[in-house]
Amino acid sequence: MDNIPQKQDLLAAAERLSPYIHNTPILTSRMVNELAGCRLFFKCENFQKTGAFKFRGALNTVLSLNDDEAQNGVATHSSGNHAQALAYAAQIRGVRAYVVMPENASPVKVEATRSYGAEIFFCEPTLEAREKGHKKVIDETGAYSVHPYDDCRIIAGQGTACMELLRDNPKLDYILTPVGGGGLLSGTALAANYFGRDIRVIGCEPQVVDDASRSFHSGKWQPAPNIPTVADGLKTSLGKRNFAIIKDHVYDILTVSEEEIIAAMQLLWQYMKILIEPSSAVPLAVLLKNKEMFSDDNVAIIISGGNVNLQNLPW
Amino acid sequence: MDNIPQKQDLLAAAERLSPYIHNTPILTSRMVNELAGCRLFFKCENFQKTGAFKFRGALNTVLSLNDDEAQNGVATHSSGNHAQALAYAAQIRGVRAYVVMPENASPVKVEATRSYGAEIFFCEPTLEAREKGHKKVIDETGAYSVHPYDDCRIIAGQGTACMELLRDNPKLDYILTPVGGGGLLSGTALAANYFGRDIRVIGCEPQVVDDASRSFHSGKWQPAPNIPTVADGLKTSLGKRNFAIIKDHVYDILTVSEEEIIAAMQLLWQYMKILIEPSSAVPLAVLLKNKEMFSDDNVAIIISGGNVNLQNLPW
Repeated sequence: MDNIPQKQDLLAAAERLSPYIHNTPILTSRMVNELAGCRLFFKCENFQKTGAFKFRGALNTVLSLNDDEAQNGVATHSSGNHAQALAYAAQIRGVRAYVVMPENASPVKVEATRSYGAEIFFCEPTLEAREKGHKKVIDETGAYSVHPYDDCRIIAGQGTACMELLRDNPKLDYILTPVGGGGLLSGTALAANYFGRDIRVIGCEPQVVDDASRSFHSGKWQPAPNIPTVADGLKTSLGKRNFAIIKDHVYDILTVSEEEIIAAMQLLWQYMKILIEPSSAVPLAVLLKNKEMFSDDNVAIIISGGNVNLQNLPW
Repeated sequence: MDNIPQKQDLLAAAERLSPYIHNTPILTSRMVNELAGCRLFFKCENFQKTGAFKFRGALNTVLSLNDDEAQNGVATHSSGNHAQALAYAAQIRGVRAYVVMPENASPVKVEATRSYGAEIFFCEPTLEAREKGHKKVIDETGAYSVHPYDDCRIIAGQGTACMELLRDNPKLDYILTPVGGGGLLSGTALAANYFGRDIRVIGCEPQVVDDASRSFHSGKWQPAPNIPTVADGLKTSLGKRNFAIIKDHVYDILTVSEEEIIAAMQLLWQYMKILIEPSSAVPLAVLLKNKEMFSDDNVAIIISGGNVNLQNLPW
């Protein structure tokens, strides 16, 4: 696919975003390094505005729209972090945001999305109902549809987290990110390719929804099975454009069990004192499962987000 | 009292500690600022080594000992963060650590203290039994006793967190810290006095153990009642030396209810994505209860620690 973000697109995204985003801290822990047998650098996008990296891509897209595209607002369907990210991005641009959410979405996320001024439409919790609701909203409002991952502006925006990471840690051997739709993984892989030197980027995925791994290893796009995972942010199938980038620029995609994800999540809470959502624990789970692969290396992990329901923790 | 840490003691502590401690990040949140009606700067000592500011004072003390004092190791009695801090400080100095802990101490904290190589002695969970056990250990081992707060080297060490804070944020109007024994509060008040300009330092305390507030407002030292609080790190009575410093250099001591502490703790977890222990939520609870007092000001809060039992959260 020709249409992938170029080096200058990522540089432009970084400049466009810089007044609005946190250059999130990179945390380290001697104790986690000892457990892992390597030097770990955690890029903490859980501290990003709206609580997840998704704000980077959403804001880059919304700020890239011309006035005609933006005038009737923006719309998406999402039960998660993209909803909050787009809502806040629209607030910054000063346009309306319309978000279709499944009626069983977490009340915390609904409230957060509303708090950024978005108008919310509820639908049945199926992909079909979400897409239908989304189309209806766009037809009625004329809003611009912002895809959560399969979009060059989104991918370039997500890549800026890796650009910040490389500025502070140019000598990385590996970068690990979670993979769901592939926005973060493809953006990271491009950034590592454009701005890094010999860095292996690895996608990390729950075993039960291993479509990215199967797609990557077979070379042929495959849809995600509709199976629940504690890392619910990663249930999505890989985007087509994201897959094209991942095929070319990602070193491997590795999977872990639900138990391994929960154990890694608890370990990060306990040792690092940071709130991370289950999806963000998947890369550390992968690393702990494959220690020999990373022995004595410099390994960065992008902590994707921290939006968890404190009333319903997985332990 | 003459014997309080001087400006050069704090400068020496900062230099002595710098190779070993984290210069912890200062986090901000637009949403928490909006809720609070002021600009807040959170100095995150929950990210400090051993998970709490206590490591600063313990390490400053252990590194200040001469070889004779240090040769038989160090000892303390503690159920909490001072135990872990002293254990790791001793490990760095290369001497033994002996810690008397109540037999009902949290298994997580016992395990953490042991993981830093300390030898642990259990006793009944009373102050009398702890002091008796501590004396016995010292008599038998010849170890040097390190008090958790009523010590100039401890106070100077705790003051270094405020020194870092002021380096990045010289224009603070207020600094709020929790107060238990008073090590952090007295060290912060001295640092603000030596290195800041017109900064009001406020101690924050649970209502149910309001000895510091009563001592401060009556001008006469008073012991803490033996009442449980969710902020169990703050149950201790004020140290005598700490009280002398606090009388001279602290602006006020304010109290909050258990419910207010839990609400502030949950708010910090949810919005800031950081794990903090209940004691660390007391300052934000004080601020939210007295918003008009801090309106539009620059207010720093020292987040004292993040050692919580994830299996037993207060909500």
